[in-house]
Amino acid sequence: MQVLIVHCHPEPHSFNAALTDVAIETLERAGHRIEVSDLYAQHFDPVERATHYPARADGGYFSALTEQRYHHDSGTLPTDVQREIDRLWRAELVILQFPLWWHAQPAMLKGWFDRVFVYGGLYSGNRRFDRGPLKGRRALCSVTTGAPAATFSRFGRSADITTLLWPIHCSLYYVGFDVLAPQLTYGVQGGGLSYQAEASFRRQLEADKARWAGRLEGLDDETPIPFTGWADWDDDGILRETHPLRWRP
Amino acid sequence: MQVLIVHCHPEPHSFNAALTDVAIETLERAGHRIEVSDLYAQHFDPVERATHYPARADGGYFSALTEQRYHHDSGTLPTDVQREIDRLWRAELVILQFPLWWHAQPAMLKGWFDRVFVYGGLYSGNRRFDRGPLKGRRALCSVTTGAPAATFSRFGRSADITTLLWPIHCSLYYVGFDVLAPQLTYGVQGGGLSYQAEASFRRQLEADKARWAGRLEGLDDETPIPFTGWADWDDDGILRETHPLRWRP
Repeated sequence: MQVLIVHCHPEPHSFNAALTDVAIETLERAGHRIEVSDLYAQHFDPVERATHYPARADGGYFSALTEQRYHHDSGTLPTDVQREIDRLWRAELVILQFPLWWHAQPAMLKGWFDRVFVYGGLYSGNRRFDRGPLKGRRALCSVTTGAPAATFSRFGRSADITTLLWPIHCSLYYVGFDVLAPQLTYGVQGGGLSYQAEASFRRQLEADKARWAGRLEGLDDETPIPFTGWADWDDDGILRETHPLRWRP
Repeated sequence: MQVLIVHCHPEPHSFNAALTDVAIETLERAGHRIEVSDLYAQHFDPVERATHYPARADGGYFSALTEQRYHHDSGTLPTDVQREIDRLWRAELVILQFPLWWHAQPAMLKGWFDRVFVYGGLYSGNRRFDRGPLKGRRALCSVTTGAPAATFSRFGRSADITTLLWPIHCSLYYVGFDVLAPQLTYGVQGGGLSYQAEASFRRQLEADKARWAGRLEGLDDETPIPFTGWADWDDDGILRETHPLRWRP
């Protein structure tokens, strides 16, 4: 199996980096081929803007969608974007490794969606959701948080983690991915500064690395998150009146 | 009243720019003072990373929180970040104007949270939520979407808009803001390219500008989105067993 890990953390010795390392080791040991998009190391530019398109389809009004489709169709997308798209086309499994910053992925990873999931290439009006071009491939978010697990539960003050990850899971499904349940690593504090902090960092890391490696070995048996699809919607994109999800006591 | 508009769109003649213009006109006409952070025009860098801190508190391990607190306390935050913080401290109302890209705010605006909402300055362990430093001020997201309104309803395929905006609303509440209901402008297509597209863009714009101006004139009478707070939580940050929200039929 070909795997793409999109790694997003500014510190090379971070907890996130260790989780990416253990994913590489575990998956390579199982015979899979791995590519890593280390967004910070690549100096990826997460900002979608006009200067990425020197020869514009519309030199007057900058519309990201217009330029994405035009440059996708003419094979002139920015090099860094085209490289990410090539990696996505090769991958059967995509792992997004990132820390939860301000209730979402860091800007660096948000911009990977903004720039790489190009209109005309990774989706269009009729090729979205369960008809998306990446259908048949799987994606999984591996997320670290600073606050402890209980605060991300249904009644916790950090907000329910399922709700917080819903936007990113929707985006992955939009281009066709089967989305696996997220790998959640709570209560992660940074390393560095004091010996105590460093020791506690190491202790937690060993436990969470083992849990992550264990899950990766059994990934083939997992069932993706269920989404509704084209067959469930009416012509306006609304769940049909007859769908069981429309009613509950 | 002092108002800060954080404007995030790459095209100066966009629908979003027109909504920001009408907010400036309407609020100035009502006697308020306005500042605008036009993130694209300012070339704001949304990526939190080590190079923003030449003189690091911890030169070994880069932790954003460690550096934010240290540089906040020593008054040596990056100039662009300090300018945004100064604007926030002056503002009684903050309007975030942005298009929904990939089920969330664009990377440019996500990074405004990542970099500007600094640990030690805009929040700390005990100064968060309804004890956040920005308590008493109001914030409001004015959001445009490409897809039509119905698809963002509870049973729509674009996903429920309230759920999609939950992460950003949680972030605003986290630093203390009273969060007003979002201003939602659906079905916005870009201008440019054809005469037909441009004409339809202008028609929709006139209607949505008027609706936005009308709302802004009555903003003082609005009730913020209700959030639970410190008095509702136990010591672990979980809603108390006795809270009415814990139970429903």
